[in-house]
Amino acid sequence: MSEQITFAILGAGHGGQALAGYLALKGFPVHLFNRSPERIGSVKIMGGVQLEGEIQGFAPLKLVTSDIGEAVKGAKVIMVVVPATGHRFLAEIMSPYLEDGQIVVLNPGRTGGALEVKHVFQERGVKAEVIVAEAQTFIFASRVTGPAQARIFRIKNSIPVAAIPAYKTVEVVRTLRQALPQFVPEDNVLKTSFNNIGAVFHPTLTILNAGRIESTHGEFDYYMEGITPSVALILEAVDQERVKVAEALGVRAVTAREWLYSAYDAYGRNLYEAIQNNPGYRGIKAPSTIFHRYITEDVPMSLVPIASFGKMLGVPTPTIDALIHLASLLHGRNYFLEGRTVEKLGVAGMSVKEIREMVVVEEEKL
Amino acid sequence: MSEQITFAILGAGHGGQALAGYLALKGFPVHLFNRSPERIGSVKIMGGVQLEGEIQGFAPLKLVTSDIGEAVKGAKVIMVVVPATGHRFLAEIMSPYLEDGQIVVLNPGRTGGALEVKHVFQERGVKAEVIVAEAQTFIFASRVTGPAQARIFRIKNSIPVAAIPAYKTVEVVRTLRQALPQFVPEDNVLKTSFNNIGAVFHPTLTILNAGRIESTHGEFDYYMEGITPSVALILEAVDQERVKVAEALGVRAVTAREWLYSAYDAYGRNLYEAIQNNPGYRGIKAPSTIFHRYITEDVPMSLVPIASFGKMLGVPTPTIDALIHLASLLHGRNYFLEGRTVEKLGVAGMSVKEIREMVVVEEEKL
Repeated sequence: MSEQITFAILGAGHGGQALAGYLALKGFPVHLFNRSPERIGSVKIMGGVQLEGEIQGFAPLKLVTSDIGEAVKGAKVIMVVVPATGHRFLAEIMSPYLEDGQIVVLNPGRTGGALEVKHVFQERGVKAEVIVAEAQTFIFASRVTGPAQARIFRIKNSIPVAAIPAYKTVEVVRTLRQALPQFVPEDNVLKTSFNNIGAVFHPTLTILNAGRIESTHGEFDYYMEGITPSVALILEAVDQERVKVAEALGVRAVTAREWLYSAYDAYGRNLYEAIQNNPGYRGIKAPSTIFHRYITEDVPMSLVPIASFGKMLGVPTPTIDALIHLASLLHGRNYFLEGRTVEKLGVAGMSVKEIREMVVVEEEKL
Repeated sequence: MSEQITFAILGAGHGGQALAGYLALKGFPVHLFNRSPERIGSVKIMGGVQLEGEIQGFAPLKLVTSDIGEAVKGAKVIMVVVPATGHRFLAEIMSPYLEDGQIVVLNPGRTGGALEVKHVFQERGVKAEVIVAEAQTFIFASRVTGPAQARIFRIKNSIPVAAIPAYKTVEVVRTLRQALPQFVPEDNVLKTSFNNIGAVFHPTLTILNAGRIESTHGEFDYYMEGITPSVALILEAVDQERVKVAEALGVRAVTAREWLYSAYDAYGRNLYEAIQNNPGYRGIKAPSTIFHRYITEDVPMSLVPIASFGKMLGVPTPTIDALIHLASLLHGRNYFLEGRTVEKLGVAGMSVKEIREMVVVEEEKL
């Protein structure tokens, strides 16, 4: 470790506690923040997190706090590890405390996370020179297993990340890699945002199996039984709409079938075959309820921004629209209104050229 | 039997064979028609149908034929007993042979059946004075159990029927009741068409349980397990859209909850409770495949006309639209195009007043 980079981890859930512990075990000073003090009560008493699994040991944390100003102060990297539905709120409360040179990384951003956070900073008049970046996925499969105790089941080996604007990605990756060599640069945040494969699988699967999830409490094989040949046709339609909207933004998004091949070596002539050929999906149970982040997070934070970009750019997204509507009915909410529309991302009315200039080219002027 | 009414039964499936046998056992002359000769081969050889169940005995038929002209000739009542997707075709092939005074009854019409058939007769320039009517449901629960053999499990005790225009319903009911006293008059065909409760239940349930139906081949309790509290919210939304479109046509359609109460004495503060309180639904298995008339018939012939009327009258039907779209993807078809739009019903561009005049008031001029 050439420099002692201080990390602030915002969010002390399954991901946040594991990441805080992991970085601390590697010798980095770590601030762990959680909005509600209850969740970090035992971590505070213990002064750190006991890690199990891939990496083991007691990881002492420099600071455990519910005070966002305290958490952010002096941190070089601010790792946001909360569901995307919490990004806006965190961006709002951290904005008065940001300092020049800080890097804010969303782990992950879902679709439009970095755009939304950057837009909030602008709305709030943030003067500090900070970089906003988003990862495409979370680095671990991990779980809180007890008070001040977390288990890392798996460390993914390649985490694409991109900053706004794109030329700052190099700086972000260089900094992150001092602690986490798994981070790799992605072209820009449109790419990380539209390569969001969870947006394709999670809501579709949950909605097309809503009756079964609710009546069996998820007691079935989510991918192998939940994705039948016909359900896969709807996955393909959602996937095509996502890829088409990305194309309209000049982005070549990876298809779900390509992703299965590169992530799992799972191949097939169509999506159904590829899924059937992915042993990694076997044995994964469905969620026990439809009130799950597969809908509560992936619909407003992944499907809504895709649909909203589509609407703005004249790319029809009838399948995604249908799923958003049904999800809204299932949950008695209005995910269109709650979700990340182009207005909330600060790009409403912009041309593709203007968006790309902001995301890819422009000198950052926060 | 005051007059010897001759019945032509068009369609020799589960319903048609049972109805033909039932009427013949009651002493009426019956013609049984089926488009493909294979299905009526053994009935023709036997000269009739062996009935089991509620009514038993060998029922000799006057005529068993694949010749539509032969089937229709001399029949007073033409009972159409095929899926609604076959109505247009049957209307087209029977139109050259129709005779003054004949009554064509769709058993049932689903949504817009009588309108579509009447429109076909007009397109084909039918000169004969015939009455077109539609029943709201099929009179029996019945099944073909072997060659020339059918079982009637249950005879429903009240079958609403309506003619176009409405004042001819009296004549239809008077005629039908000589053989089938279960027929009762309904206000008009908008009422029979919009009181189509199957439109609410079948597609929604099948789509929201698509994964389970396909992976278990229907091995679960369709209504009790397939309708969970959240699935019921989507049923309620579909139901409200149906009722709202009917209202725009000046029709007070029965809600699904009211229907459960009147048909099954099943009550509840919401649709979910009412369904749970209906013992009649217990033990009914799901269809073994999603390629079932719950979609192939109910989507194009029930949901599409409701959505199409809604569009014409400015009543939004987002939930029904979403289901039609997903069903189209599941089956790799375009049910919007295949279905009964207002164009196919011959009412495109008409005002509510004009539709109601045609359906309710007007002297029939075929």
